[in-house]
Amino acid sequence: MKVSALLTSAGINIGLCVLLWFLYSILRKQPGNVCVYFGRRLAQGRIGFDNPICFDRLFPSPSWIVKAWATSEEEILAVGGLDAVVFLRILVFSIRIFSIAAVVCLLLVLPLNYFGQEMIHKQIPSESLDVFTIANVKEGSRWLWAHCLALYIISFSACLLLYFEYRSIAKLRLAHITKSSPNPSHFTILVRSIPWSAEESYGDSVKKFFMNYHASSYLSHQMVYHSGTIQKLMDDAEKMYKKLAELKNTAANQMCEPSLVRCGLCGEMTNSFKLLANEAESVHDKEKPVLDQLKSDLKEKESGAAFVFFKTRYAAIVASHVLQSPNPMLWVTDLAPGPHDVYWSNLWIPYRQLWIRKIATLVAATVFMFLFLIPVTFVQGLSQLDQLQQMLPFLKGLLKKKFVDEVVTGYLPSVILMLFLLSVPPMMMLFSAIEGNISRSGRKRSACCKVLYFLIWNVFFVNVLSGSVISQINAISSPKDIPTQLAKVVPRQATFFMTYVLTSGWVGLSSEVMQLYALICNFFNRYILWKKEVSPDYILSFPYHTEVPKVLLFGLLGFTCSILAPLILPFLLVYYFLGYIVYRNQFLNVYVTKYESGGQFWPIAHNTTIFSLVLSQIIAIGVFGLKRSPIASGFTFPLVILTLLFNEYCRQRFFPIFKSYSAQDFIEMDRQDEASGRMEEIYEQLLSAYCQFSAASTENFKTQDSVRSDGNHDSEDMNSGEAAICMRKLWMLQCISGKEDDNKH
Amino acid sequence: MKVSALLTSAGINIGLCVLLWFLYSILRKQPGNVCVYFGRRLAQGRIGFDNPICFDRLFPSPSWIVKAWATSEEEILAVGGLDAVVFLRILVFSIRIFSIAAVVCLLLVLPLNYFGQEMIHKQIPSESLDVFTIANVKEGSRWLWAHCLALYIISFSACLLLYFEYRSIAKLRLAHITKSSPNPSHFTILVRSIPWSAEESYGDSVKKFFMNYHASSYLSHQMVYHSGTIQKLMDDAEKMYKKLAELKNTAANQMCEPSLVRCGLCGEMTNSFKLLANEAESVHDKEKPVLDQLKSDLKEKESGAAFVFFKTRYAAIVASHVLQSPNPMLWVTDLAPGPHDVYWSNLWIPYRQLWIRKIATLVAATVFMFLFLIPVTFVQGLSQLDQLQQMLPFLKGLLKKKFVDEVVTGYLPSVILMLFLLSVPPMMMLFSAIEGNISRSGRKRSACCKVLYFLIWNVFFVNVLSGSVISQINAISSPKDIPTQLAKVVPRQATFFMTYVLTSGWVGLSSEVMQLYALICNFFNRYILWKKEVSPDYILSFPYHTEVPKVLLFGLLGFTCSILAPLILPFLLVYYFLGYIVYRNQFLNVYVTKYESGGQFWPIAHNTTIFSLVLSQIIAIGVFGLKRSPIASGFTFPLVILTLLFNEYCRQRFFPIFKSYSAQDFIEMDRQDEASGRMEEIYEQLLSAYCQFSAASTENFKTQDSVRSDGNHDSEDMNSGEAAICMRKLWMLQCISGKEDDNKH
Repeated sequence: MKVSALLTSAGINIGLCVLLWFLYSILRKQPGNVCVYFGRRLAQGRIGFDNPICFDRLFPSPSWIVKAWATSEEEILAVGGLDAVVFLRILVFSIRIFSIAAVVCLLLVLPLNYFGQEMIHKQIPSESLDVFTIANVKEGSRWLWAHCLALYIISFSACLLLYFEYRSIAKLRLAHITKSSPNPSHFTILVRSIPWSAEESYGDSVKKFFMNYHASSYLSHQMVYHSGTIQKLMDDAEKMYKKLAELKNTAANQMCEPSLVRCGLCGEMTNSFKLLANEAESVHDKEKPVLDQLKSDLKEKESGAAFVFFKTRYAAIVASHVLQSPNPMLWVTDLAPGPHDVYWSNLWIPYRQLWIRKIATLVAATVFMFLFLIPVTFVQGLSQLDQLQQMLPFLKGLLKKKFVDEVVTGYLPSVILMLFLLSVPPMMMLFSAIEGNISRSGRKRSACCKVLYFLIWNVFFVNVLSGSVISQINAISSPKDIPTQLAKVVPRQATFFMTYVLTSGWVGLSSEVMQLYALICNFFNRYILWKKEVSPDYILSFPYHTEVPKVLLFGLLGFTCSILAPLILPFLLVYYFLGYIVYRNQFLNVYVTKYESGGQFWPIAHNTTIFSLVLSQIIAIGVFGLKRSPIASGFTFPLVILTLLFNEYCRQRFFPIFKSYSAQDFIEMDRQDEASGRMEEIYEQLLSAYCQFSAASTENFKTQDSVRSDGNHDSEDMNSGEAAICMRKLWMLQCISGKEDDNKH
Repeated sequence: MKVSALLTSAGINIGLCVLLWFLYSILRKQPGNVCVYFGRRLAQGRIGFDNPICFDRLFPSPSWIVKAWATSEEEILAVGGLDAVVFLRILVFSIRIFSIAAVVCLLLVLPLNYFGQEMIHKQIPSESLDVFTIANVKEGSRWLWAHCLALYIISFSACLLLYFEYRSIAKLRLAHITKSSPNPSHFTILVRSIPWSAEESYGDSVKKFFMNYHASSYLSHQMVYHSGTIQKLMDDAEKMYKKLAELKNTAANQMCEPSLVRCGLCGEMTNSFKLLANEAESVHDKEKPVLDQLKSDLKEKESGAAFVFFKTRYAAIVASHVLQSPNPMLWVTDLAPGPHDVYWSNLWIPYRQLWIRKIATLVAATVFMFLFLIPVTFVQGLSQLDQLQQMLPFLKGLLKKKFVDEVVTGYLPSVILMLFLLSVPPMMMLFSAIEGNISRSGRKRSACCKVLYFLIWNVFFVNVLSGSVISQINAISSPKDIPTQLAKVVPRQATFFMTYVLTSGWVGLSSEVMQLYALICNFFNRYILWKKEVSPDYILSFPYHTEVPKVLLFGLLGFTCSILAPLILPFLLVYYFLGYIVYRNQFLNVYVTKYESGGQFWPIAHNTTIFSLVLSQIIAIGVFGLKRSPIASGFTFPLVILTLLFNEYCRQRFFPIFKSYSAQDFIEMDRQDEASGRMEEIYEQLLSAYCQFSAASTENFKTQDSVRSDGNHDSEDMNSGEAAICMRKLWMLQCISGKEDDNKH
């Protein structure tokens, strides 16, 4: 590929980007698109729909860029949570390290590459891009120490920056935990695999177990019901309610005060309905068989999982960490996810299935990863013009035209690849859901890892290896040859990666800011279906599982290509700068944060960066070997070891903070709350925090959104009307079963 | 190798074994050898030294065999602890599975191998051993399904037996934990990486921290002192004591009652010396500067580690499991090892060094493993007679003799290999000590794993691979080819493994029962140095780190060779039967159990067996591939997957029991002790259980034993004279510092 082809590609992409940003600047001002571009504000009710039509609406303005740029980290933290801050920190880290890399490589390495061979240079535009890569350096050149030095500088700066980032994010996480308002998940554990017994229900077993072994700290519990049966139960309750309504006319009128509404199908319903106890006596005889029926129904629907609430955070963390039963497959405890973070439909999965589910999804994801080779190899074929001509001989005339040539080699392959890649995140989300994650954030994190492995394998390795070898499987099976093989082909594939940054990176960002899919849906709804009301389905949570891997993949490309083909770095820097603006804007305006993982994406980013560093060092060793510079090769070895040691140190020093909470923090928090007398209030909130019901009733909503191309089907906002119905049904159900419970006590 | 050569080798070994067992039967009756053969009974004082000389002493008798056979598992458990039972269970499991394998393979597979080719068979003695291996089966033979079936039977029986063993050992472990007498280690945690502060000593920090965060359950603590400085401290104390003695003549006479002696350099010495408080007032002024000096000395010698005692087992397990501080590198807690199990000299290692120590020893052990190739390759060369003749041409005449030929090919290589292998366990013990294990059992377990990897690599893989390829490194670097390569060479190397079983297995067992090294030392002491008194240095703990890997290695050989060369199975069965007798005898008579890991060798055995099974299945796939039987090959694949799934299930179901204790058990135990009012008594025992002093003073003893060839330098029994001195010194030290402490309170 020639410089002019690259410039053409860059030109097309810059044009596309400018066009899209221009369009965005106008479209965002249209009142009809409010639900597309201001979902978050809409959810908070902080924006109106009907702005007056004014002249300003028809002109683009860069004010949003200024706004996104000027927003402080505190605001982002308040708006998007810690995960958003961590994501932006990944971008900032990338900008910093690639700025350093760009300075070092463009000043030191690029000239050496360009003047590496004694040759007559053509004019720059018609120069091959290979001239700018390390492939142009003579074998046995003495100047390779400069490449080695550049690698050292990049590696050391990267480690230093990583260390400071890890430290500061760990601090942020600790502050986030200790300084936030009381979080129900800190007081709650999820117990799974409750042993089944013929004599007592799951609920009674839970109560008995925790009253026995954790008597001093046990507060209450809430059973998890088999998903799907809830709806049926609610229908039953409604019928029952109608029957009872007639009976109740003879009884006291205050019964079932709406003010008693409490969320959650708690097994422990002793508090809420005390006032019913006396008044209901009279109706009791008549309704008894009906109630008994309902109660036994309810007990039958209980699954072997429950949320258990504790009086202190420390008690909860203790119960979640310690092996409860001598049979490790029973009474399995974990800290509960946050109320909005719970992935209800996975909770009732029998615990003994989980390990086999994990293995099965791992195998499925791996198979998917390898089957994906087929379209990618095809795409790779497209980028090699002569192969395309052979395959489709009738195109010969067309392909000989210079412009078409440049478009095909520089642009088309990446676009096709990108389209294929769009199908990956939903697949991985599906795998992660089947895997049995108990939290939405856990599912997203798991999908994030899967997408990341997928991208690294399919975009980097397969492209690199299939560029030279047809059967990639051979490549994995001889690990010894991989460095040499990579060293041979990575510099050659650098041009492909540059175009990949342009298409997938730049244009990807622009389409992210445009929200094309949501925009089209909105247009369709408004002007084809003539729906006037704004549906809140578009209010999405941030797709970390697609964006984090993307950003990290570009990091991988940057590190591996930096000393081999430094020309990629300016393109990459532009990508990261654009990303910084775009994602800040999106966090502020578009996405809603309903749940978060508390910065747990950072360890993924850290590990991936270390992997990228080590990979680039290994490739460098291979390259130095090929260039017959054993000294440079030898000097790079210690760098690999130092990088790995650094990683191990960080794993020891920081990683446990992201895995668990510390006793010291939790005890201090408990003490503060006890001292301020807030505990009672917290307990009350706690008992109504986990609400399987509302989630179940919104399962219907979810499907509307699940077709979205990036697999981001997480919008469980409830329509207020539906919510009201749900609450009413729930209240009825509780009236019925709660009263019965009370009579017993 | 021919059948006759094998028989010669077997003959020599049987002769040697019979001779050694014969000798043992006589030698064990000689009173002079009591300390060699009855160390355990000697340690318990249950045997006298001077039996009358009687006629019976000169004749061998098999009574010990009968005794060893008849001993019940309960007795073994009482005598050797759970680890001994687990070790014997490994043997029993091996006997069972290889009995099944022998029946299946000798009846089904062996005839098929022998009549696999249409050939005229020679007389059995001059038949090549290869005729009995799978190498003799025709390519594309239909009878390979029998091999596949045999593999299925063996794999399924092995998994079934493994499951039942795992279950029963897990039960044993739980019973061992719950039903044993109160164990100080259950109440104690080891805290490392106590943060250093200029204002207060480590001891004060510990007290402050645990009084603050674990006030309700904290009992006391005991600092760990820098190893080596203890002796100096004791010397100082003795000087001090002499000075004080003069002063004390003027004070009360009851001071420093010997009955107050308490072990351990506790930071908390408030209980023991209360009676001193008043009487010492008068001397206080004069001795104050001296005492201050000693106390500040003592505080300076404190390391950043301490044992913390809790009031209940549950509190200890909680404190050991939960992350204490928001900085994971501070206040690191683990459940403490048992008092005799503590490896004191590793406790004061700064915690932040540990991860790097672990990596360093891992690297060192790996390098050692690979450098070992050199002598092994040489040994392998010896077994190939023509190479030997080429190397040492003057031996040509000698080597042509038939008997010499048979000895050299059948016997010598294994002996040399065995001699080299003797140096491995001490090295691995050293590595495991440097690694920073806090307990002796942990060190032994870690060494056991290292020796196991070493043996599997160097005895199995290197022998197999160097049989055909000179550079083994090539073999690891192309994992895809390994199955085929193994399939080619394992059947050929089967004869070597048979002789290995004979020499290393049978003769190894006989020399184990003979205790050659201890016997020679004893002889040297008694008849050359004319020492009459019996030193207790010979009382050793069982060398699990050499014996477990050995037994498991033979299992590996058995599984991999079973369907390829079934002739190995009878030899193996004999080995396991002999081992069963010998090891039971040794547990009963020779070895002392001072500490134990609570059955933690079983997971190692389980995992190794699974590895062996999978390896043999992979080799079978390779062999079926080579023999062009794709159906058999295809049928074996699911077996590999099923075996791995079975392993994963066991890991989920049983492994956590071996990693941790359950809250349920510990709470029940606490309740029982509280109900029976034993708690106060337990607390008292607890405070004197951990005694850094006695261990430190016996470090001198240890060196006498550490030269023993199997690296088993664990005999820390104290000579009673030395112990008395140690106790006196300790008592002095405590008098001095305890009184001072008391005055403060």
